[in-house]
Amino acid sequence: MNFYFDRAITFPEGFVASGINAGIKKDQKLDLSLLYSIEPAVAAAVFTRNKFQASPIIVSRENLKKSGGKARAVIANSGCANALTGKNGTKSARRTAEVVAKSLGIKPIEVLVASTGVIGKQLDYHKIERAVPKLVERLTVDYDETFVRGTMTTDKFPKMCATEVGLSRGRHFRIGASAKGAGMIHPNMATMLSFVTTDAILSSADAQVILTNAVSNSFNLISVDGDTSTNDTVFLLANGASGTEVKSYEDLKKFEEALTNVLRELAKMIVKDGEGATKVVHLKVQHARSFEDAVAVGKAVAVSPLVKTAVFGGDPNWGRILSAVGNSSVNFDHTKVSLKIGDLVVFDKNEPLKYNPRKLRKAFSSQDIDVTIDLAIGKHSAEVITCDLSYEYVKINGEYTT
Amino acid sequence: MNFYFDRAITFPEGFVASGINAGIKKDQKLDLSLLYSIEPAVAAAVFTRNKFQASPIIVSRENLKKSGGKARAVIANSGCANALTGKNGTKSARRTAEVVAKSLGIKPIEVLVASTGVIGKQLDYHKIERAVPKLVERLTVDYDETFVRGTMTTDKFPKMCATEVGLSRGRHFRIGASAKGAGMIHPNMATMLSFVTTDAILSSADAQVILTNAVSNSFNLISVDGDTSTNDTVFLLANGASGTEVKSYEDLKKFEEALTNVLRELAKMIVKDGEGATKVVHLKVQHARSFEDAVAVGKAVAVSPLVKTAVFGGDPNWGRILSAVGNSSVNFDHTKVSLKIGDLVVFDKNEPLKYNPRKLRKAFSSQDIDVTIDLAIGKHSAEVITCDLSYEYVKINGEYTT
Repeated sequence: MNFYFDRAITFPEGFVASGINAGIKKDQKLDLSLLYSIEPAVAAAVFTRNKFQASPIIVSRENLKKSGGKARAVIANSGCANALTGKNGTKSARRTAEVVAKSLGIKPIEVLVASTGVIGKQLDYHKIERAVPKLVERLTVDYDETFVRGTMTTDKFPKMCATEVGLSRGRHFRIGASAKGAGMIHPNMATMLSFVTTDAILSSADAQVILTNAVSNSFNLISVDGDTSTNDTVFLLANGASGTEVKSYEDLKKFEEALTNVLRELAKMIVKDGEGATKVVHLKVQHARSFEDAVAVGKAVAVSPLVKTAVFGGDPNWGRILSAVGNSSVNFDHTKVSLKIGDLVVFDKNEPLKYNPRKLRKAFSSQDIDVTIDLAIGKHSAEVITCDLSYEYVKINGEYTT
Repeated sequence: MNFYFDRAITFPEGFVASGINAGIKKDQKLDLSLLYSIEPAVAAAVFTRNKFQASPIIVSRENLKKSGGKARAVIANSGCANALTGKNGTKSARRTAEVVAKSLGIKPIEVLVASTGVIGKQLDYHKIERAVPKLVERLTVDYDETFVRGTMTTDKFPKMCATEVGLSRGRHFRIGASAKGAGMIHPNMATMLSFVTTDAILSSADAQVILTNAVSNSFNLISVDGDTSTNDTVFLLANGASGTEVKSYEDLKKFEEALTNVLRELAKMIVKDGEGATKVVHLKVQHARSFEDAVAVGKAVAVSPLVKTAVFGGDPNWGRILSAVGNSSVNFDHTKVSLKIGDLVVFDKNEPLKYNPRKLRKAFSSQDIDVTIDLAIGKHSAEVITCDLSYEYVKINGEYTT
């Protein structure tokens, strides 16, 4: 499968986008983005499982329900999460949808809203109102990176991925996607913010099932810091502009595979760009009783500050990895577990093994570290991807609102 | 209740202790400690719930079972956890008990063993064998701090607390306790290592129930970094040397209260001395449906790296606290929750409130920060104590084995 890493949500036919500085962020950076589908599109969404849901999520849920799973535009801002902002916050999100709808000549229920940034701060809706006409004016297929940059917070680089898939009888479709990440990344249902477009013709029901599955196998397998945000959102818009109907089981499988692969690429970028991250750890959990068990073991290791700081220091303290495995809620037989760092098996069947310490240190010092945890009690596996915990993470998050 | 913070396990009658450098740590610091009860003592223990249990825990469990809940000595080392060390490790722990028993003229099953330090490294049993005669020679009631220092790893100060309790008819008993903490502190059943003595006469069954309860209400309510160690152990030895029988319900309640208070003091010291900690956060969760729910909500906040780094930076980013509450597994009504930082209510009934930002910043910058989370759906409450996450934590744990 060919990926285009310089293209995102306007790669599929019939989508235009723009990004602008609306003055929500204090610096001059882009902070407001608009995506528009020229034709009405089927829309699917996956939201955070945090019990405190941000206002844009409340409004987007409402709109998706009222429109019967359709949408034509997505408005997203960075610099303010509009979360824990009460009735005022919900009003701001609703007004944002209204002003976008008015400017585009569509219905408010056809607009989806997403926000990211500081929690608990009210969104200055007037800034958005003033900026939207310009955003609409600048809509283009040419610079989808400006859209992506308008959704970024502490991200160091824009996360974009697109692909084109051929089906039988010369048919094809495109998928384009962006994501923003950096901190508060431990998705339970979705990552921070990700926007996906396709020009395939998809039914609303299929779009939702496929998006949910693809998120489970991509964004839900990564962790930066174990915190699940109030704002996590993934939107998929399918506008059918390619004329390719994705309906047969075979085609739907191909679509899901392509979408999963695109989202995996974005998920990896999010970990790589995790706040303060210097290394990426691939936690391969094998032979678990279920996929869920494998994920739970991987995440138990991924959230351990002791493991994450050891990785940062290049300190091959493998006992911390197994200690974290032992703290997971998963039932396993600890006498069967083996642990492999890179190519070196360091522990097997309740016994530490002899290994070359220099080789171990080298494996622990590389940019990408492979850790294989074999539970040896089942047939399921999962790969959870995480990053280290550095001085920089502490710095970024100790100074975030100030 | 009067606490003595310069006394520990030899404060009760009939206990002697010592500490020595046996060469397990690379520096010249104390690393091996011995506690001895002149008379046979009832012994109770609480161990980690980590599925990987360290060798000293395996051996101590065996010995407690064989002796029917009696013990006369505790040998503890720092610098090596003797965890994930397989059969060799278990052999080393067993031999340690044997050599102590031989030197003291008691049975090996009367010896309890505890270790702390690096996981996965074999314990050099010969160093212990060589050091034990000197340890026995130096046993004294005078310097229980040397015992405590022999159990320390990255602790900055020894954690000691003792008390004397009067009962009816002029009877009294003493409790003395020590603890070591610093990192990998998120006890599920116990803290890293804590040793408790009393000269009260207690039955084995009562001692175990009381210790379990007291640990639930002290060590199990703190978190430094969310990692539960493979070695967590609390031992209680009751040798009856005071002649005071604690048997009636009233006396047992008094004993439990005194023990809980002593362990709470130690728990607070552990948090204060958490690796790299600069501030202590008191998370008071109120009106939960159960004590367990209150603890779960408090711990969800306590393990959040985003909350911990915000506290370190003195950044009053209260949204992160509620976001962490929203991620806990506890069921609650998010429209009822209120959040108070110090005296300032910042969020109530799904609405952010107006507050003086300078006052909030001040409350967030103090050494001890009170955070009150009111769930408003039940009658139970708990206070979970945690610390911040600083550059120093990353430094300590990135360089630990090196």
